Amino acid sequence: MEKLTEWNNCSRPHVIEWIEQLKDIVWDKVLTCLTWMRPSWRLHLGHYKGALENWVKLQNNPNIKNNFLIADYQVLWDHLWDTDRLRSSVIDMVIDWLAVWLDPEKSNFVIQSYVPEFAELFNLLTMFTPYGVATNNPTLKDEIKKIENRWEWENSSISLWFVNYPVSQVADIMLPYWEIVPVWEDQIPHIELARKIIKKVNTMYQTNFPLPLAMISETPRLVWTDWSDKMSKSLWNTIYLTATLKELKDSVNKMYTDPGKTNVQAKWNIENHVVFKYLDIFYSDKQHLEELKRRYIEWWENSVWDWELKKLLVKILDELISPIREKREYYKDNMDLVINSVERGSQNVREIWQQLLSELKEKMGIVGYGREFIK
Amino acid sequence: MEKLTEWNNCSRPHVIEWIEQLKDIVWDKVLTCLTWMRPSWRLHLGHYKGALENWVKLQNNPNIKNNFLIADYQVLWDHLWDTDRLRSSVIDMVIDWLAVWLDPEKSNFVIQSYVPEFAELFNLLTMFTPYGVATNNPTLKDEIKKIENRWEWENSSISLWFVNYPVSQVADIMLPYWEIVPVWEDQIPHIELARKIIKKVNTMYQTNFPLPLAMISETPRLVWTDWSDKMSKSLWNTIYLTATLKELKDSVNKMYTDPGKTNVQAKWNIENHVVFKYLDIFYSDKQHLEELKRRYIEWWENSVWDWELKKLLVKILDELISPIREKREYYKDNMDLVINSVERGSQNVREIWQQLLSELKEKMGIVGYGREFIK
Repeated sequence: MEKLTEWNNCSRPHVIEWIEQLKDIVWDKVLTCLTWMRPSWRLHLGHYKGALENWVKLQNNPNIKNNFLIADYQVLWDHLWDTDRLRSSVIDMVIDWLAVWLDPEKSNFVIQSYVPEFAELFNLLTMFTPYGVATNNPTLKDEIKKIENRWEWENSSISLWFVNYPVSQVADIMLPYWEIVPVWEDQIPHIELARKIIKKVNTMYQTNFPLPLAMISETPRLVWTDWSDKMSKSLWNTIYLTATLKELKDSVNKMYTDPGKTNVQAKWNIENHVVFKYLDIFYSDKQHLEELKRRYIEWWENSVWDWELKKLLVKILDELISPIREKREYYKDNMDLVINSVERGSQNVREIWQQLLSELKEKMGIVGYGREFIK
Repeated sequence: MEKLTEWNNCSRPHVIEWIEQLKDIVWDKVLTCLTWMRPSWRLHLGHYKGALENWVKLQNNPNIKNNFLIADYQVLWDHLWDTDRLRSSVIDMVIDWLAVWLDPEKSNFVIQSYVPEFAELFNLLTMFTPYGVATNNPTLKDEIKKIENRWEWENSSISLWFVNYPVSQVADIMLPYWEIVPVWEDQIPHIELARKIIKKVNTMYQTNFPLPLAMISETPRLVWTDWSDKMSKSLWNTIYLTATLKELKDSVNKMYTDPGKTNVQAKWNIENHVVFKYLDIFYSDKQHLEELKRRYIEWWENSVWDWELKKLLVKILDELISPIREKREYYKDNMDLVINSVERGSQNVREIWQQLLSELKEKMGIVGYGREFIK
């Protein structure tokens, strides 16, 4: 058993498997954790399984102090013409958070743009980041590829903000003294960049900003209900946390299942069977699930039909979503609680982060010019 | 005669010749002016003639409200390892300002890093700036060329900050509601960029940020005393505002003069004669100067010798510098006045600029998320 304070040093791998791995560690201090989400649209089951459910675990761990960041700048840059939608996405997202039992009394809900210290630190960090390193980030390269031709003004297709954004994320990490960063695997380069920049700052100014550990989620990304490559709002190929029972039934009924099932001679397989994919993730009775799978690929007399599986999935998902739905309604009728959660959370952290930023500026030597001459 | 408020619209050229041209305008409102200087080293006569002397004129114009910006970020990015020098440069520069009669009671002395609102606005403005436009700025391209190989970390020679810097300058312009911008001719592309971005913001959010006019200085850049291409601290080829009489004499004595002068057969010419270049700029008795030039290029019996010209120049420059020198000493003994000037100036503008920034964020729709749902 290793002490937590010894865990994070430069020589060991700085990627760990989700929170389970932390069980082997002696909690000799409280960890700070900041996770973020983009308020880009309504939250769906993928957000729930991939993030929110784990956030609730984090929140219930007394050794972790959680800050949940609403990364509005990460949506704003691409929605300058349409901030009304950003506004409703922010509020919808916070309501969803509250509805899945994230608790603003235990954790801070922080809106990025409510904390100007981020921008100030970000501006400083760009000085520590070689231009080449910033633009070499693979996530950025991929994203640049994706968004080409989407944004057009003069001859350029992307904004300067987008090139800066990995560094602005490092500011998001650095200020809250982030130590554990729950991320998807493809976000690891961001954490690598953060570690490089933070090391540089620590070396130059004898500061103690922690080097963040990436914590990989154990949950695979959910497939879309139509087995397509990406979410499509127009195709409604995902299930939102706001789904009514009817929407839930519609979505599940349209789910892609094994095409071989229509051919009695074919060997049943469940590789591309979306309903089973969802059951894998959401059905807790694993024994029964194995039995269903066995019967599904067996000879047809004893078989399970798609409609039975779908009915089961609807039942399971509705058990999950209906309390969320109810809590959403409660918070929609009590908007002051929603607004208060983010305003108070942002204010709470600002006080601490202002302090951290001043200390950094002090060590850098860019505060109180001339005061050294006064006896 | 045109009213000032009608002067600045998009269809007319937005570059004017120094402040003289503003005489033809009816001053129907007070103009805001923000000029900046980089605290990179001690100020020399070039700064005095190219900027400070004009700043004093601006300050004495009751129709102009002046803010003088100490652009410390513009030096910091390249001096992260050496902020002690930045600190002393800042203070030396402010003392020089005070010593040439800039008055913190009339104008605001503002330190860039004391006003976090700049960083916040800068971060927003990067969203409005296409990456291509930001990196196409000719001044930036030139500067990138100049600094290549100077900054090395991993494979990159310049920092991300440097690529951002024209946009960070737009934030410096935009927040103070800049209307007139005294600049060198090579800085005009910065003003063009500012106008583009500000127009974009004004159009999108019905804001009224003024489009800044570039105001070109009437004074040519001073040549270096050794007629070389650039200032060199090791060669001492410039005359600092801190120069003692002895340093002044040494500098003037080393000044490059016409090499033909040593050959009696050659026709005297004054084209590369540094002493005359300085007299052109600093000697107010133009009639006498013309006479000296005439005699210098005439036949030798009636001629003026270099030592006479140099003696005259030393006298003139000492008349200029000695009161500055004395005032410097006074402020060095009263550092609280120096510190107070920048702390109060920065605080004065922060209050106004916080207000401007909140108004912008309000119009953009990124404040008070959810408040629209509360009756």
